[in-house]
Amino acid sequence: MNAPTSLHQIARPLPEAFVAALRQRFGERFSTAGAVREHHGRDESAYPPMPPEAVVFAQSTEDVAALVALCAEHRVPLIPYGVGTSLEGHLLAIEGGVSVDLAPMNKVLAVNAEDLTVTVQAGVTRKQLNDEIKHTGLFFPIDPGADATIGGMSATRASGTNAVRYGTMRENVLGLTVVTAEGKVIRTSRRAKKSSAGYDLTRVFIGSEGTLGIITEVTLRVYPQPEAIAAAICSFPSVQAAVATTIATIQMGVPIARCELLDALTVKAVNLRDKLGLPEQPLLLFEFHGTASSVEEQTALVQEIAQDHGGHEFQWATTPEDRTRLWAARHNAYFACLQLKPGCRSSTTDVCVPISRLAECIDETIRDTAASRLPAPILGHVGDGNFHCAILVDPNSPEEMEEAERLNRRIVERALRMDGTCTGEHGVGLHKMDFLLDEHGADAVELMARIKRAFDPLNILNPGKVVRV
Amino acid sequence: MNAPTSLHQIARPLPEAFVAALRQRFGERFSTAGAVREHHGRDESAYPPMPPEAVVFAQSTEDVAALVALCAEHRVPLIPYGVGTSLEGHLLAIEGGVSVDLAPMNKVLAVNAEDLTVTVQAGVTRKQLNDEIKHTGLFFPIDPGADATIGGMSATRASGTNAVRYGTMRENVLGLTVVTAEGKVIRTSRRAKKSSAGYDLTRVFIGSEGTLGIITEVTLRVYPQPEAIAAAICSFPSVQAAVATTIATIQMGVPIARCELLDALTVKAVNLRDKLGLPEQPLLLFEFHGTASSVEEQTALVQEIAQDHGGHEFQWATTPEDRTRLWAARHNAYFACLQLKPGCRSSTTDVCVPISRLAECIDETIRDTAASRLPAPILGHVGDGNFHCAILVDPNSPEEMEEAERLNRRIVERALRMDGTCTGEHGVGLHKMDFLLDEHGADAVELMARIKRAFDPLNILNPGKVVRV
Repeated sequence: MNAPTSLHQIARPLPEAFVAALRQRFGERFSTAGAVREHHGRDESAYPPMPPEAVVFAQSTEDVAALVALCAEHRVPLIPYGVGTSLEGHLLAIEGGVSVDLAPMNKVLAVNAEDLTVTVQAGVTRKQLNDEIKHTGLFFPIDPGADATIGGMSATRASGTNAVRYGTMRENVLGLTVVTAEGKVIRTSRRAKKSSAGYDLTRVFIGSEGTLGIITEVTLRVYPQPEAIAAAICSFPSVQAAVATTIATIQMGVPIARCELLDALTVKAVNLRDKLGLPEQPLLLFEFHGTASSVEEQTALVQEIAQDHGGHEFQWATTPEDRTRLWAARHNAYFACLQLKPGCRSSTTDVCVPISRLAECIDETIRDTAASRLPAPILGHVGDGNFHCAILVDPNSPEEMEEAERLNRRIVERALRMDGTCTGEHGVGLHKMDFLLDEHGADAVELMARIKRAFDPLNILNPGKVVRV
Repeated sequence: MNAPTSLHQIARPLPEAFVAALRQRFGERFSTAGAVREHHGRDESAYPPMPPEAVVFAQSTEDVAALVALCAEHRVPLIPYGVGTSLEGHLLAIEGGVSVDLAPMNKVLAVNAEDLTVTVQAGVTRKQLNDEIKHTGLFFPIDPGADATIGGMSATRASGTNAVRYGTMRENVLGLTVVTAEGKVIRTSRRAKKSSAGYDLTRVFIGSEGTLGIITEVTLRVYPQPEAIAAAICSFPSVQAAVATTIATIQMGVPIARCELLDALTVKAVNLRDKLGLPEQPLLLFEFHGTASSVEEQTALVQEIAQDHGGHEFQWATTPEDRTRLWAARHNAYFACLQLKPGCRSSTTDVCVPISRLAECIDETIRDTAASRLPAPILGHVGDGNFHCAILVDPNSPEEMEEAERLNRRIVERALRMDGTCTGEHGVGLHKMDFLLDEHGADAVELMARIKRAFDPLNILNPGKVVRV
C-alpha cells in the first residue's frame, strides 16, 4: 500500500533542451531553487518530502497547455499543485519531473448570479471565492476544512462539512476546462444544469487527481445564502450516543446542513489550542440552513432526538462571529490534534460507510485505537457516514509508522466489510492504491487503468498515483 | 446527423455456431420470431424500425455475462433493451446483432431503509419500484414521464419532472453492477453515500447508452416521503409570463419539487385526450414537498411571484387522487400531442439552457415553430431550463421529416449559442451524434471515443451510437 516507510523517489535529471525551453517560455516563473522545489514536494500526509526537479508557476490555461506539450515532447512527468493540502501523497514527485503551481491562476472569471453558477480559475481557494461572491447573496458550500483550491478540490472529489446537505464536488461542479495529456484544451460541459450529451467527461476528471488531465477552470453551482442559519454544539455521554443522534436525524430526513463529530480527545485538543472550555466529552456540531421557520422546525426536532440519546443542552451560536469561532474550532481540529504530540505527523484515515453501519464501524475502530499506543483522535462528517482517525505518529519512528499502517489497514478492511469505501473525500494518491483493488476488484480497476492509458498514453500526468499502468 | 430519412440498416445474418450456442444456453428465452424482433427494433423516435436478428430475454447478470462472452467470441453486436421508451433511436439494430431484453430482470433486490438506498435489477420500472417500497415510507423521485426501467434511465442519464429538486440519475445512482464487453461482472461502487476512491466508473456508465457495458443492477438513493405534498396549476397570459415566473422561483431558491410548462397547444391536446377542461393558455404545474409549514411558505411565495407575472388563481390538487389526475395529464401530454395529428410521429427536441437564457430560447423557438407548417407543442421541465418541442411529422413524408430536422437543428444551435446542451435528458442515441461534436468539440469527443475503444475494443456493445470509433 505504498507505506510512507517503503516508498523511494526515482527521479531523473530533466533533459537540458527541456529546461532551456521552459526557461524561454516561462522566464522567472520557472524555478529550480531548492526551497521552491522542497515546498512543492510535500503535502499534509506522513510521507517524507519528494520534491520535483523544477516548478512552473502557471498564469493561464495557455501556460499549462504549453507546459504539457513540452512535457509530452520530452517525456517528463508533470504534477499539478494547488496549495498543498492533500493528505495521501497526491503531489509527491515520486518519479521526479515538474510541478505546475496553479495558485497564480486565482481569478473568479464569471459570476452568473441568475443561473446560480460561477466560473473560476483552478487556483482560486474556497474562502477567496466566498469572499468575492459574498455581495451577490450567493455562497459556495463545499468546505473540506482546509482552504484548498477549487482545482484541487475538483481533482480529489472533495467534500467536507456541508456535503450532508449540498453534496460533494461531484454534484457541484457543472463543467471543467481541462488541458489533456497532448496539451489540448477541452471544456467538458456547457453551463446547462443537466445534460445527457455523451459520456460524462466532467465526472471522469473529478477525482482523477491530476492523472488524466490538468484542470484549469471550474464552473460551479452556488446557492442563495440561506435566510436563516443557526449553529449549535451538543455534548454526549458517549460517541455511540452522538452517532445514534446523527443516524436518527438523517433517517428522519431533517435537511441538516452540517453534522460533525469530535470525540473527547479531539475536543481536548481544540480546547488546548483555542481555549474554548468545551466539556471534554464527545461533541456534535450542527448547522441548520433555511427559512426562519424551517430552521426553527429542524432545530426543535434535532434537539428532541439528541435529548432522547442523552445529549446535553444545545449551546447556540447565533451571531456570525460566534458561528465563525465555533467553526474555526472544527476547522482547526486537525492542527489542534497535531499539537497533542509535538513533532508528529498524522496518518489520517477517511473511511465512509452506509449510515446504518456507522455506529458499529466507529465502535470497533475505537476499540482498536484504544488498544494502540498511538493517539488517534476521531472527527468527521458523520451525517454522511464519513469519519477520520488522525493517527499521530513520529515520522522518524519506523515502529510508529508501521503501527499507523496496521491501524489504517484494519479500519479500511472494516469499512469495506460494511460495504463502505476506503476514502470518502481525501482520494487515493499514493497511499490507497492497494485499497482500491480491495474495494473495486481487479476487473473494475483494470477499466480505470484503461482510462488512464487512453487519456495519457505516455504516462506523464502525475504518474504512479491512483492506478498502476 | 443521422436523420431518420438518411439512415439505413446494415445487418448481417448471425453465425450459425453463435445461434446454436444461444439456443443451447437460453432455450425458449432466445427468439428469432418476426414479431419479437420487430418489437425490439423500434423506440418512441421517428426512426423507422430496425429490428435485431434475434432477442435474448435475460433473467440474471450471469445470463448477460454469458451472452456478452458469446457475442465477443463471434463479433456480434449486442443492444440492451428495457421497455423501449427511448427517443433518439438508441436501441435500433443499425448493424444487426442481438437485443438483450432486460425486462425479466425485475426484482427489487434490497431495500436498505435505514440508509435510504435500494438495489434493483435493471428491468425494474420506476413505477414498480415506487409501488414496492411504498410501505416503507420511502420513494424514488426520478420521473421521466414514461414508466421506463431503472437500467434504461441510468443508461440515458434520465431525469424529468422532479429533477429540479432531487437531481437526475447522475446524482441518484450510488453504484451499478455492469457486465463489461469481455463478459466480466464489476460493481462500480460500494454503498457509501460518497467516495473518492478512484475514477468515477459509476458516472462513466451513467449516460453511456449501452455502448460501454450492460447495466444489470442499480443501487439508488431514495427519500423519505415528504410530510406534505401540494400540487397546483396556474394559467398564464403568455409563455413568457410562465417562464418568467419559473425563473424568479428558482432564483429565489424556493425548493420546488416540480415546475412544468405546457404551452397552449399542449393544453389543448391534453384537454382533447383527457377532458380536463383546462383554459387553453400556457400553464405551469407546480408541486411542493416538505413539512406542512415549509409547503405553506413555498406556495405563498410562488403564488405571489406568479401573480406578479399575470398568473391566474392557483387551482390546487390536494388529495392524492387529484394529484394523480393532474400528473397523469402531464405524463400523457406526449401521447396527447401525438393525437393532434393522426398517424404522426414526434421528432422531440430536448435542449437545456442556463435558466437566465430560458425565456429568450423559448421565445425564439416559438417564433421558429410558428412559422413552420408542422405543429410543435412545447412542454418541459422549465425549472431546470429544459424543454421539449414535440415536432409532429408524417414519417412517410420526406418533406415533413426534413422540415423537422431543420427545426431541430435550429433549436439545438440556439441552445448551444446560449451555453446550453443539445440534450438535457434524452441522450444522444443516433440522432445527436453530430450535435455532440458541435457541443463538446472534436478533442473532447475524441476522449469519449478513447473511452469507448478502451472499454469495448471489438465494438460490439450498441455499435454506431453516441460516438463514432
